[in-house]
Amino acid sequence: MLHWDAAAMMPTGGTAARAEQLAALRGVAHQHLTTPEIGDLLAEAENETGTLDAWQCANLREMRRRRLHAAALAGTLVEAESRACSECEAVWRNARMQNDFAAVLPFLERVLRLEREIAATKAEHLGTSPYEALLDQYEPDGSVATIDRLFDELAHFLPSLLEAVLTRQAALPPASTLSGPFPVELQRRVGKKLMEHIGFDFGHGRLDVSAHPFCGGVPDDVRITTRYDENDFARALMGVLHETGHALYQRGLPEEWRLQTVGRARGMAVHESQSLFLEMQVCRSRAFLTFAAPILRETFGGDGPSWDPDAFHRRQIRVQRSPIRVDADEVTYPAHVILRYRLEQAMIAGDLVPADLPGAWAEGLQQLLGIAPANDREGCLQDIHWYDGVWGYFPTYTLGALIAAQLFEAARAAIPDVLEAVTQGEFAPLLSWLRERIHSKGSLLSTAELVESATGRPLGTASFERHLHHRYLD
Amino acid sequence: MLHWDAAAMMPTGGTAARAEQLAALRGVAHQHLTTPEIGDLLAEAENETGTLDAWQCANLREMRRRRLHAAALAGTLVEAESRACSECEAVWRNARMQNDFAAVLPFLERVLRLEREIAATKAEHLGTSPYEALLDQYEPDGSVATIDRLFDELAHFLPSLLEAVLTRQAALPPASTLSGPFPVELQRRVGKKLMEHIGFDFGHGRLDVSAHPFCGGVPDDVRITTRYDENDFARALMGVLHETGHALYQRGLPEEWRLQTVGRARGMAVHESQSLFLEMQVCRSRAFLTFAAPILRETFGGDGPSWDPDAFHRRQIRVQRSPIRVDADEVTYPAHVILRYRLEQAMIAGDLVPADLPGAWAEGLQQLLGIAPANDREGCLQDIHWYDGVWGYFPTYTLGALIAAQLFEAARAAIPDVLEAVTQGEFAPLLSWLRERIHSKGSLLSTAELVESATGRPLGTASFERHLHHRYLD
Repeated sequence: MLHWDAAAMMPTGGTAARAEQLAALRGVAHQHLTTPEIGDLLAEAENETGTLDAWQCANLREMRRRRLHAAALAGTLVEAESRACSECEAVWRNARMQNDFAAVLPFLERVLRLEREIAATKAEHLGTSPYEALLDQYEPDGSVATIDRLFDELAHFLPSLLEAVLTRQAALPPASTLSGPFPVELQRRVGKKLMEHIGFDFGHGRLDVSAHPFCGGVPDDVRITTRYDENDFARALMGVLHETGHALYQRGLPEEWRLQTVGRARGMAVHESQSLFLEMQVCRSRAFLTFAAPILRETFGGDGPSWDPDAFHRRQIRVQRSPIRVDADEVTYPAHVILRYRLEQAMIAGDLVPADLPGAWAEGLQQLLGIAPANDREGCLQDIHWYDGVWGYFPTYTLGALIAAQLFEAARAAIPDVLEAVTQGEFAPLLSWLRERIHSKGSLLSTAELVESATGRPLGTASFERHLHHRYLD
Repeated sequence: MLHWDAAAMMPTGGTAARAEQLAALRGVAHQHLTTPEIGDLLAEAENETGTLDAWQCANLREMRRRRLHAAALAGTLVEAESRACSECEAVWRNARMQNDFAAVLPFLERVLRLEREIAATKAEHLGTSPYEALLDQYEPDGSVATIDRLFDELAHFLPSLLEAVLTRQAALPPASTLSGPFPVELQRRVGKKLMEHIGFDFGHGRLDVSAHPFCGGVPDDVRITTRYDENDFARALMGVLHETGHALYQRGLPEEWRLQTVGRARGMAVHESQSLFLEMQVCRSRAFLTFAAPILRETFGGDGPSWDPDAFHRRQIRVQRSPIRVDADEVTYPAHVILRYRLEQAMIAGDLVPADLPGAWAEGLQQLLGIAPANDREGCLQDIHWYDGVWGYFPTYTLGALIAAQLFEAARAAIPDVLEAVTQGEFAPLLSWLRERIHSKGSLLSTAELVESATGRPLGTASFERHLHHRYLD
């Protein structure tokens, strides 16, 4: 709640006090989690797993995981990392603005030194590779072998698919555009209306504004944010629908395990799968846009063929090569993620030093996407993650996209006429399916088990490839 | 921050989760405060007060006070009270609506039993009377002897003063009225404008909406709330100015003692003195209304003599006998407080049982104010305090009014032309005076010492009496 408040409500003068509050809470939580008594209790419970049911066993496993992450690091290392990241992130904000990688380089080097130390220590405790120890913070039990296999498949078929899509789209007449301004109040209203249609309960959540959209809060009180652009309502709207996917997941977590570790979301890949399921699979579909177009036209007083469902669909599935990850469409997005995944692995392994990052970035982007960044601002300075100590997170974006595609394929097979229902604004069948197969499972299963139990197959790239073919080439 | 959020932002469905969050934080704080180690450290420090300066000594004294309050009660008693109050408060909401005192009586009896137990236990630890032990939670070192003396003086001169005011106001032609609607957005805007003029820094605070206006947050991030009525902007505006007084106090607390106990506000009497100083002494003055009237007229597009400063002043100083405390003007307000103070003392002493409360209330109101409540809803059901376990709080309202009057008299003596400055919208001299004499002192001095150091005299009723004479009879 304090994070949400800091992003959505807090006056700027509250920053230092809020940092103190968060540090105090973090300290208390860490202290509780690492107290020897908890270790004894966990060990005792682990000796008696025969008496526990599946949920209790999973709860114990996840408690142990949290304890391992918390207890692996000496307090001095945690503090040093926290300080180094705060400083680096602050310097990065300016460096990005100034396109000055050299300015932030020594800070990034210090963060990386500490992350490598953390990775090595946690790896020892978790029995994984150092990179996997970092990955485990965001994607529990995430495996480099699995990710490598999936990403290699993507890297294999995406370039030619992208070429085909670009060729096809270039042959079409340009998509019509909408001209604003679109008042923020109307954007907010129509966003809330569509959220409600989809199943967001405003008795248990809010929609607000922040510089970087996110989903926060707790299952009974889910807070999502967006940012508005008066010239382009579709961007905020798609962002709202994306966060609504996160929100529905959080809201649907198992009520009977609310305050237990196993009651939490499975990890960032599954979380992202829920936002991409809603945004990419559902809301950029012709079915959804057929439902939404008249509502949007009415809200903004729109007129003419640019407000037809087909026109919305054309605009929402435009593909282009761009150096910026957050602007990327779903066809090019994986290339951005694979690039970062390979680079951060190399840096954690010590095979790449930050000083060589700009060159490696340009080379990788050329290879994966066939373009070059104009400068570091469009290259290795664009994302906050590494500068803020978030290493091992990037793969979850694309894992989420793969899971989303595989889930949607399974949902379409399981629910006849589901797209017809979406066209009518009926989302209950889809939401029930997700509630039952994903949301209500919390952290009972691993990501791999969860995907297989929900879709009948291990996670692969085939559904995603079929989805892209269907949407962009059929 | 969580309390503020619950009142101003939270969706209703978040209530139970928020209760859990607050209980968890309260539990952690209580655990820290009552750990034996803290007791040892306090005792050690108290043996070496010779090496401490005045601030450190005061800090130690206030730490000891918090520790005494926290450690006096067994965890089971704290929990029982918390549960009893939650239940009683919920029942009270309905009982008040239904005017059904009998429905809430058994719950109130249980709360009172627990409060008496708490009072007795704390009294033993603090070395005070049971009632004073409760009072000490809100008004540290508050003394029944002092309050009795002040309240007896008020009870002595207020009835005849009230008669004189009513006679005088009855002889005047009725005050002109304003007719709305006054759009909420304009009310918000003009409220914020006046807050900024007075010195509220929106870089360190916010103004929002809640059912019951309050001031929350922390000194670097002060959150105040109000509620709007489209038919009457003056009420919300005076509420905003009242809370702004609280906010300026909180914002002005000593920065060098931010996270220390001595850096906190002195108590609820001083806190209320700051809100009443601004609302009653400053903002209901002809000087302030001369400044504000043109701004209000321009904001709402007002026209005619009803928008003249004199008309505003007439409306803002209207006096009448009313059975409802929160609707009372400053002339009749003390009667409401004295009534509650006497009744809660009697109940804590065991001299009055809740079953006899309605009768005692009617009798007391008749004696103090010369009117009778039409029913319990207008009588002993009107305030949340007792039903929610807040005993010993009521006197602070009127102590605050007395302190405010004495401070304002001193400020006028110390700062020549201060009312002329207010007429011009210059509040800096007044605010500096309060900052230096009150805000920056935190809890360094007792309330009695603070008032005497700021005004040169012990707290009395003379300034308040002079203020009422001047405003209502001159």
